[in-house]
Amino acid sequence: MIRFDNDYTEGAHPRIIEKLVDTNEEQLPGYGRDHYSDEAKALISSICDHDVDVHFMVGGTQANLTIISSALRTHQGVIAPDSGHIAADETGAIEATGHKVLELENENGKISAEQVEDFVEGHWNSPVREHMSQPKMVCISQPTESGTLYSKQELERIRKVCDDYNLYLMVDGARLGYALASEENDTTLADVARLCDVFYIGGTKVGALFGEAVVISNGSLKEDFRYIIKQKGGMLAKGRLLGIQFKVLFEDDLYFDISRHALEMAKRLQEGFENKGIEMHYPSPTNQLFPVLTTLQIDKLRQKYAFQPWEDLDVDRKVIRFCTSWSTDENDVEALIEDIGRL
Amino acid sequence: MIRFDNDYTEGAHPRIIEKLVDTNEEQLPGYGRDHYSDEAKALISSICDHDVDVHFMVGGTQANLTIISSALRTHQGVIAPDSGHIAADETGAIEATGHKVLELENENGKISAEQVEDFVEGHWNSPVREHMSQPKMVCISQPTESGTLYSKQELERIRKVCDDYNLYLMVDGARLGYALASEENDTTLADVARLCDVFYIGGTKVGALFGEAVVISNGSLKEDFRYIIKQKGGMLAKGRLLGIQFKVLFEDDLYFDISRHALEMAKRLQEGFENKGIEMHYPSPTNQLFPVLTTLQIDKLRQKYAFQPWEDLDVDRKVIRFCTSWSTDENDVEALIEDIGRL
Amino acid sequence: MIRFDNDYTEGAHPRIIEKLVDTNEEQLPGYGRDHYSDEAKALISSICDHDVDVHFMVGGTQANLTIISSALRTHQGVIAPDSGHIAADETGAIEATGHKVLELENENGKISAEQVEDFVEGHWNSPVREHMSQPKMVCISQPTESGTLYSKQELERIRKVCDDYNLYLMVDGARLGYALASEENDTTLADVARLCDVFYIGGTKVGALFGEAVVISNGSLKEDFRYIIKQKGGMLAKGRLLGIQFKVLFEDDLYFDISRHALEMAKRLQEGFENKGIEMHYPSPTNQLFPVLTTLQIDKLRQKYAFQPWEDLDVDRKVIRFCTSWSTDENDVEALIEDIGRL
Amino acid sequence: MIRFDNDYTEGAHPRIIEKLVDTNEEQLPGYGRDHYSDEAKALISSICDHDVDVHFMVGGTQANLTIISSALRTHQGVIAPDSGHIAADETGAIEATGHKVLELENENGKISAEQVEDFVEGHWNSPVREHMSQPKMVCISQPTESGTLYSKQELERIRKVCDDYNLYLMVDGARLGYALASEENDTTLADVARLCDVFYIGGTKVGALFGEAVVISNGSLKEDFRYIIKQKGGMLAKGRLLGIQFKVLFEDDLYFDISRHALEMAKRLQEGFENKGIEMHYPSPTNQLFPVLTTLQIDKLRQKYAFQPWEDLDVDRKVIRFCTSWSTDENDVEALIEDIGRL
Repeated sequence: MIRFDNDYTEGAHPRIIEKLVDTNEEQLPGYGRDHYSDEAKALISSICDHDVDVHFMVGGTQANLTIISSALRTHQGVIAPDSGHIAADETGAIEATGHKVLELENENGKISAEQVEDFVEGHWNSPVREHMSQPKMVCISQPTESGTLYSKQELERIRKVCDDYNLYLMVDGARLGYALASEENDTTLADVARLCDVFYIGGTKVGALFGEAVVISNGSLKEDFRYIIKQKGGMLAKGRLLGIQFKVLFEDDLYFDISRHALEMAKRLQEGFENKGIEMHYPSPTNQLFPVLTTLQIDKLRQKYAFQPWEDLDVDRKVIRFCTSWSTDENDVEALIEDIGRL
Repeated sequence: MIRFDNDYTEGAHPRIIEKLVDTNEEQLPGYGRDHYSDEAKALISSICDHDVDVHFMVGGTQANLTIISSALRTHQGVIAPDSGHIAADETGAIEATGHKVLELENENGKISAEQVEDFVEGHWNSPVREHMSQPKMVCISQPTESGTLYSKQELERIRKVCDDYNLYLMVDGARLGYALASEENDTTLADVARLCDVFYIGGTKVGALFGEAVVISNGSLKEDFRYIIKQKGGMLAKGRLLGIQFKVLFEDDLYFDISRHALEMAKRLQEGFENKGIEMHYPSPTNQLFPVLTTLQIDKLRQKYAFQPWEDLDVDRKVIRFCTSWSTDENDVEALIEDIGRL
Repeated sequence: MIRFDNDYTEGAHPRIIEKLVDTNEEQLPGYGRDHYSDEAKALISSICDHDVDVHFMVGGTQANLTIISSALRTHQGVIAPDSGHIAADETGAIEATGHKVLELENENGKISAEQVEDFVEGHWNSPVREHMSQPKMVCISQPTESGTLYSKQELERIRKVCDDYNLYLMVDGARLGYALASEENDTTLADVARLCDVFYIGGTKVGALFGEAVVISNGSLKEDFRYIIKQKGGMLAKGRLLGIQFKVLFEDDLYFDISRHALEMAKRLQEGFENKGIEMHYPSPTNQLFPVLTTLQIDKLRQKYAFQPWEDLDVDRKVIRFCTSWSTDENDVEALIEDIGRL
Repeated sequence: MIRFDNDYTEGAHPRIIEKLVDTNEEQLPGYGRDHYSDEAKALISSICDHDVDVHFMVGGTQANLTIISSALRTHQGVIAPDSGHIAADETGAIEATGHKVLELENENGKISAEQVEDFVEGHWNSPVREHMSQPKMVCISQPTESGTLYSKQELERIRKVCDDYNLYLMVDGARLGYALASEENDTTLADVARLCDVFYIGGTKVGALFGEAVVISNGSLKEDFRYIIKQKGGMLAKGRLLGIQFKVLFEDDLYFDISRHALEMAKRLQEGFENKGIEMHYPSPTNQLFPVLTTLQIDKLRQKYAFQPWEDLDVDRKVIRFCTSWSTDENDVEALIEDIGRL
């Protein structure tokens, strides 16, 4: 079975594994107070080109719920596309911390500045707004769960609305590498740091064994963040594991290099589908592809490949997700393309 | 200013006030352990014709959050129409207790058994259902926030889906009197008790100073409910106030009589609108009317009457809510009808 | 049965009842937007002699959980005596909103500035303080659950510690009238407003049918408080009921007059016990008395009187609570004293 | 600097590292659905000799809050010693899920069956028990945070009380290996599985990079546990990392072998202290030692060794914690003993 079902099918990039092996016997302080963590934070801060706080966390859901419950008061909610991870894929993790996810209808995984403004305007204009969850944060994913990207202009317009209505802007960057390295992308990590109040740089899906780097730009969100990491169960005793991994990822542009590999693999695969006349459900320029296949095609491919069912369009046409990643083997992609050609 | 903006503009029905005055000097145990509360519970149980537990609470949001947080485990959510009170009007009260409100698109304030079944079926068929809030309860309002009613058949079909998928059915009956007394209604209080796992009978909007009677039919939801009332701040020290009021409401059919009055007033008012050729936005057979008025019409009526803006259809056409209640004065209705005729 | 078991055995003071009757037919806006509520707030603000926000809530547990969950971030806790209402008597209501109650050992229901300082100092000096709930608020009761009082000096010293360590000071004043009217008291309502960030003035136990007036002095705690009242289920549709009651209580010093009555009754009763050589367990100068009785004495008094078991000191000696209130009948007190004399 | 400050100063046992390296390129399903996780679960189930569910989680606080919030209803609390990790060291993590930690005074880190019974009996005998958090679970640590052990008889007596009062028994086994391998221990893993409703086997402090194995014996606690792992942020995308580690730890008794090493090191170190006439604050037969040192002694040792301040007994006598672990180097221990001799 060759797996294209997600971007976390292997362990970690060999350079990360190597570094974990090399440092294994070193005695270091716990809870992220080690020098590797400090160095990794300094590297990320430097690339962000902004006065930021960096914290390492184990996973995305944990990062989302920690950030949001740290930032919001009890009556405040977070605006997100209805396709967003916090809305659709986290077992009500945000609600479990007491906050409503205020869902806006997505288009290809995205929401627009206008949608946000209309919603927030509606809240503040309501004479009974106290009977509604108060919108205080916008959380979008870059790239989105549909593989699409926000352009710099789109982000700037959302930022503008956030400024106008006193909202925090948060980016779930679980696959941020695959956005930043995309040919269609016009946004740098420094742009993201400048435009967001808080975001995170995904490691789990981009070469690390696990780990997300939370980056806080807004000074008012920095206070006491470590308390909340601890409370929510996210403070790793051997925090070094996160520091070491992110140091490796960011010291020689490894994060961007391996992201580019995934995108190159996705591009070839997409051409394979399109050459066969297979339509893509979302216009994704990143590492997730959403071809529309027939049941017969799916059954054939299923013999050799793992992929993820996404949505049934009708009885015979189904959207399927294929992921490439930092670890995708070129030969596997070629084999798959060949098999697509034979469908 | 003559108020039609809601159904809680006056105090309480004179017979309730009278009884509160008469009993004021009696020394009674606290926290609902008094004989009036016992008598009121017995009356309601008897009408429900079912082995139920009855608890009195001060208000609707409190009743909703207490019931739902008592019934659900942390990963479970409650299905509701997106127009439902728990979804739209309670400042995220349910989420604040940790549970996601799983919103389905309403039609005239209602959802159907098919919608519920499709949603729940989708959950249980998903290979990644553990990443989603688990649907465990359905919460609908009778009458709905749009004034409409579920028929007995509709309720029975929703009950069937709840049985098939192991869901609790809860009815928010903040205006239950106005449903039960409606000409279009074919459901008795005993039917509601039989079909629901838990529901409540609204007092605040139907003649009481305040108060809702929570009725629990499902034995597994009865345990320890008083603990949770206390924890959520809903245990009134002078619980007698609730017992006395519900005793008065239910000992001579007062609850139904005063509901009928409100419906008669609403019916006349609706005729007044229709005679003027004014369209109703929702087909409400209960005490809330939703005429579509022009800005000019609204400005004229606003001189003498209070009513509630509901929704803007376009620049000039707006949905407005008029409520009648147990306390609506016939002369006020006649005056309003006359003024509508002159619009 | 003559009841001395608590201070909420009757309804409301006759003047309150009278006003509720008189205003019953008035049509008023909901949710505390009526003129009675405005007038009551103005009266209380004026007596507090401070720029405060006033909100009316139905009960004490509700007020406590609303205030605390409004003020604290998720990792912050509230310091309280282990005998405090929020620690011992509210079914974990504060924890249910996510916050730890940091309990300090009480002495006669009180904690000292030194205890608070030691605890907070310990927190901030700990190298692993992020692993502990951060103390951010002090919540004490005036009078305490043991009937005792904090002197102005004691309150000022606690205030000083709160200033030094950036803590909010909250007073649970469910029985505040019985503190303010006590002969031993040297603190005015204006002092309380000046020394606290937030507190509430209890109505339920001091002449109202129900209701507590939350007073917020600290500007940073004022924002959005109504949202949180609504979310926690505390926003009464007929908010007028609270406004009317507090207006009556505060427009002619009624609140203080009826408190004085309760204290006079308690004083006589205490003399009755002491004349019989019965010891008081706590040195309470307010409306709660805690005599130490033998099982035989208890059994005798139980024939005619209701009172509350409090604590078993040993097999035969038990602490019992007797409460007087605004509604205590002088004849009942005299009868009880006579019966005590015969024990 | 030679570190004895905790038992997570190095990475992982070499055999674990080796296996992670060897399996790094394998493509496997995510979220713990891989065969390594299945094999590790089967191994642990087999040793537990009981029909258990096993789930792997990243850390201890996460495991605690996930288990407790899965097991309890909103009004229920968990009994723990005041020195317990959930009471003292997790930033109110349990309270943040809504549940009160009901703290009993510890003696050397332990509580007794009698203490639990008295507390629970007190709850159920109270006429106002609905005003208190309902005790529903007992959570103890084995070994305790003071390094001490519960004997099998002690555990059986606590189990008996749990049976009598319908309480769950949970064991926080973050250092369970160091209990099971202790000379003083008379309890097997199968005993723990039999006596507890749920417990976990710590990996982070016993040879793994990270990870705890949650073992659920009680059938009623098994349902839907994976939902709650996901909701609380504990579902590792690359769940293989946990499965692989626990497979290595349990396939050749490695877990017990490396635990024995730590205990042997601790024993020698304890002799070193005692030979110098230094008293131990707690009678710990496991891998944590709590010598009472003078400021001067501390200052001298601090030059070469890292250790953890624990408690100040008076101005000059302080309790210090030294930990050994699976990774402790014999030479480091000898060096430390020599330096202790020279104090």
